Amino acid sequence: MAISTKPPSGTRDFLPADIARREHVVGIIRRAYALRGFVPLETPTVERVEVLTGKYGEEGDQLIFRVLKRGDKMPELNADTDPGDLADLALRYDLTVPLARVVAAHRNDLPRVFKRYQIQPVWRADRPQRGRYREFYQCDVDYVGTEACLAEAEVIGAVTDALEGLGFDGFTVRLNDRRILDGLMERAGVAADDRGGVLVLIDKLDKIGTDAVVAALRDKGLGDDAIEALRPALTTDDARPDRERLGELRRAFEGVSELGVAGCDRLLELLDLLDADPPKVGVVRFDPTLARGLSYYTGPIYEIAVDGLNGSMGGGGRYDELVGMFRNDRVPAVGFSLGLERLLVVMEDRGMFPELSPGADVLVARLDDDATAWALRVARELRGAGLSTEVFPELAKVGKQLKHADQIGARWAVLVGSREVEAQAVAVKDLRSGEQVTVGVAEAIARIGAPRPESTTA
Amino acid sequence: MAISTKPPSGTRDFLPADIARREHVVGIIRRAYALRGFVPLETPTVERVEVLTGKYGEEGDQLIFRVLKRGDKMPELNADTDPGDLADLALRYDLTVPLARVVAAHRNDLPRVFKRYQIQPVWRADRPQRGRYREFYQCDVDYVGTEACLAEAEVIGAVTDALEGLGFDGFTVRLNDRRILDGLMERAGVAADDRGGVLVLIDKLDKIGTDAVVAALRDKGLGDDAIEALRPALTTDDARPDRERLGELRRAFEGVSELGVAGCDRLLELLDLLDADPPKVGVVRFDPTLARGLSYYTGPIYEIAVDGLNGSMGGGGRYDELVGMFRNDRVPAVGFSLGLERLLVVMEDRGMFPELSPGADVLVARLDDDATAWALRVARELRGAGLSTEVFPELAKVGKQLKHADQIGARWAVLVGSREVEAQAVAVKDLRSGEQVTVGVAEAIARIGAPRPESTTA
Repeated sequence: MAISTKPPSGTRDFLPADIARREHVVGIIRRAYALRGFVPLETPTVERVEVLTGKYGEEGDQLIFRVLKRGDKMPELNADTDPGDLADLALRYDLTVPLARVVAAHRNDLPRVFKRYQIQPVWRADRPQRGRYREFYQCDVDYVGTEACLAEAEVIGAVTDALEGLGFDGFTVRLNDRRILDGLMERAGVAADDRGGVLVLIDKLDKIGTDAVVAALRDKGLGDDAIEALRPALTTDDARPDRERLGELRRAFEGVSELGVAGCDRLLELLDLLDADPPKVGVVRFDPTLARGLSYYTGPIYEIAVDGLNGSMGGGGRYDELVGMFRNDRVPAVGFSLGLERLLVVMEDRGMFPELSPGADVLVARLDDDATAWALRVARELRGAGLSTEVFPELAKVGKQLKHADQIGARWAVLVGSREVEAQAVAVKDLRSGEQVTVGVAEAIARIGAPRPESTTA
Repeated sequence: MAISTKPPSGTRDFLPADIARREHVVGIIRRAYALRGFVPLETPTVERVEVLTGKYGEEGDQLIFRVLKRGDKMPELNADTDPGDLADLALRYDLTVPLARVVAAHRNDLPRVFKRYQIQPVWRADRPQRGRYREFYQCDVDYVGTEACLAEAEVIGAVTDALEGLGFDGFTVRLNDRRILDGLMERAGVAADDRGGVLVLIDKLDKIGTDAVVAALRDKGLGDDAIEALRPALTTDDARPDRERLGELRRAFEGVSELGVAGCDRLLELLDLLDADPPKVGVVRFDPTLARGLSYYTGPIYEIAVDGLNGSMGGGGRYDELVGMFRNDRVPAVGFSLGLERLLVVMEDRGMFPELSPGADVLVARLDDDATAWALRVARELRGAGLSTEVFPELAKVGKQLKHADQIGARWAVLVGSREVEAQAVAVKDLRSGEQVTVGVAEAIARIGAPRPESTTA
C-alpha cells in the first residue's frame, strides 16, 4: 500500500512562502516583546506526562498527545495493562504549565521578577477544522513574580505594540477584572456554587446576545432583582467614559463586595498607567461583559477585539495561583497570549503583508560551459554585496533558466557567456521590465541595488 | 509524590542566555544559507509512523519516539494486542525523510530544482550523555533535483560560509567520493557482499589508526595484494596535491573500475568549481580515507574537520536514490548537515561568542510613586529610540532595583523621582562605571547610544 505523503491530520508543511509570512509576523511580535524587556524562553517539545495531566481539566486531558514508553520500560500487554501506564511523555499542550515548571526548576537562575516571552508550537488532539490545527503556535508574554499593576500595563503594552507593528490600526483592548464579576454576582446574591455557571453564560453574550443570556439566567432561577444587579455585565452599549462607569460601580460595591471594590480600584490604577503610555492606534475600553473562559484568573482580564472581526486575536489576565503550582508557593503572574494562526489568516485576508520573497534576489544563468568559473566569481561578488544569489546548476537553454528565476521569485537575472567572460562583464536583466544591459559587475550590483531586508536577514 | 520539575531526560530548558547564543548561531547559519538562494522549509513535529519506520535501519527504528493513538483509535489491550498497533504518529527523527515526503507531496508547488534549508529539532531515544541529547537541532541544507556538480559546490559553499560567519578560522572540508571507495574495493577484489564491512573498518581509521584497520582487514581474509590495492583509503599522510593524487588514482582505475573513474572525474570537476569560489578561511582537501557511515550516499561525500577537535562538525554527500522514495521516482540530491549542539559547545569552549545580552538595555527605577507617569513616558521614549527598556514594577529601594538591573544584565539605569519629574529630566547611571548624570531624555538617549543589534532584533 502506498504511504500517504500528506502531513498528519491537523498539521502542516510550511513551504518557503509560508515561512516568510510566519517569520515576518513572529519577528515583529518578538521585537515588540523584547523592546519592553521581555526575554525569550523555550521548553522541550515533550514533558513528563504527570507534569501535564490534571492541569487542563478532564476535557483537556483527553486532548493531550502521549508518547509511548520505549524498550524495557514498555509494560507487557494483557487485559490488566493500565492504558495510563503506556506513556511516560506528552507533547506540550500550552506554554503556561511549562513556564510554571521552569519557574520551579530554575528558581535560583531566574530573577524574582521574570519577564519572559515564549513563541513555540503546542499540540492538541482536537478535531481539525478550517483555521484550527493540532499543531499550532502560541505567542505568550508573561510577567511573573509581582503583584504590581505595572505588570498588567506592560503585557498590554507589549501586545498592542506588536499589533501596531503588524499594521493593525483599529483594535480595542477590552478590559475587565474577574473580581468585578465576582462582586456583581455577590451583589446579585448568586450562590458561590452557581457562579461558574453564571460566568459561562456571561461569556456567551457576544455570541447569543443579552436577551438570550437573561432568559438563561432566569432559567437558572435568578429573579428580576438579581438580574438587575448583574446588569453592568449584561450591557454592551454603555457609552459613558470608563472612569465614570468604574466610579459608579465602585460606589455600588462599597460595603457590599470587597472583591468588587478591589477590582474597580485595580482597573482605575491600570487606566492611569495606560494613560501615561497609551497604545498608539488601538484603544483600551472597560468592558464588564468580558468574562473569559479560563477559571484560573484572579484579577484583571483582557482581550483584543479587532474592528470588523468576530472573536478575539488573543487575551490574558492575572493568574496569581498558577505559576507557583510546582513550587508549593504563591507566584503572582500576568500573561497575554496571541494566536499566531489567526493573526496570519486575518493579515492574509486583509492584504497586510509586505512583499516577501523568500528566494534568491538574483539568478545567474550560464550560456555556455566556458562561463562557469566567471559565473561563480560573479555570484561570489553579488553575495558579497548582500544579494541572495542562485546560480542555475545546469547548462540549459536561457528560457528554461529564466523560467526557474520566475519560479523562485527572483527579480533579476545575470546572464554570462563567452562574450561576457572575455569582457569581464555581465548582462543584467530586470525580469519585471524585461530591460537588459551589459555592464561590469560593480555596476550590476549598483543597478540591482540594496538587498531587500527579508531576503537576507530572514 | 512531588513531581520532578526537571525537563525530561535528554531534553533541556533554554533560558534567555542559552537562547541568545543559539539564535546568534542559527541566525548566521540561516543568513549564509539564504545568501546562496536556499529557502526555508519546516515540517511538522509528528509524522505518520509508517513514514518514518524502515528508513533508519533496525537500530534507528528502536530509537523513534512513537505517539499513542487517541480515543476510539486506541486498540483494546490484551495479550494479543500488537504493540505496533498502539501508535499512529512518531516524532521527527531527521530532516531528510521529511524532505523526501515534502518533495513528493508538494511536487507541483515546488520548482524542479529545489534548494532548501531546514533548521529544526529532531528526537531520538538514545541514551543521553554529555553533549548528546534526545531532543537536538539539525541545520540541514539540501540541493534537490539536479545531478550537476554545482550542487555539491553550493552546499559546501553554504556550510563554509556559515562556519566563517561564526568565526571559525581553521577548518578542512575533507572530500571523497563513495565511488572511489567502491573502485578501490573492486580493484582489491573485495566481494560485493563484503564491501559494507570493509567500509565500516575504513570509517574507523580516525579512531583506531591504520595498523589496527589493516589487521582487521587481514582478519576478514584480505591478502597483501588486496590491502595494497586499498592503500589510498588507508593512508592519512599523503601530502601531494589533490589533483596529482586524483590523477594517479584515475589512471589506476582505467579499465578496472568505471565507478572509480567516475568518482575521480567528479571530484576533479568539483575542485575546479571550488577554485572559482573557494572558502575564505577553510581549506578543501581530497581525503580517500573518508568513508562516512551512512549507506545511502551515491557520489561525493564530505565532512568538516575543525583544527584541534576530534570528530566532525557536520558532513554530507550526494544521495540520488533517497529523496524520490515516496514518489517512485529518482530525485538526485546533495546535502550537508551541521550539528547545532556541537557547534555551540565548541564555540563556548573557544570563547567565540560576542557579548550577547538577551535582556533589557535599560532599567528605569522609580524613587517614589509621584514619578510613575513620568517613568512610563521616559520608558516610551527610550523604546521609541530602539532601546530595550524595563521599568521596575514595584516601588522598592534603589539598591534592590539596581540589583535587578544587574541580574537582567542591563548596562544602564535611569532613575526618576519627584525632582526629576519637576525638571522633566532623568538621572542616567552607567552601571559599569558607576558614573551618574542628570540630563534631559534626549540627552539620556544619546548617552546610552545605539542599541546593540542582538538586544532588539533578536
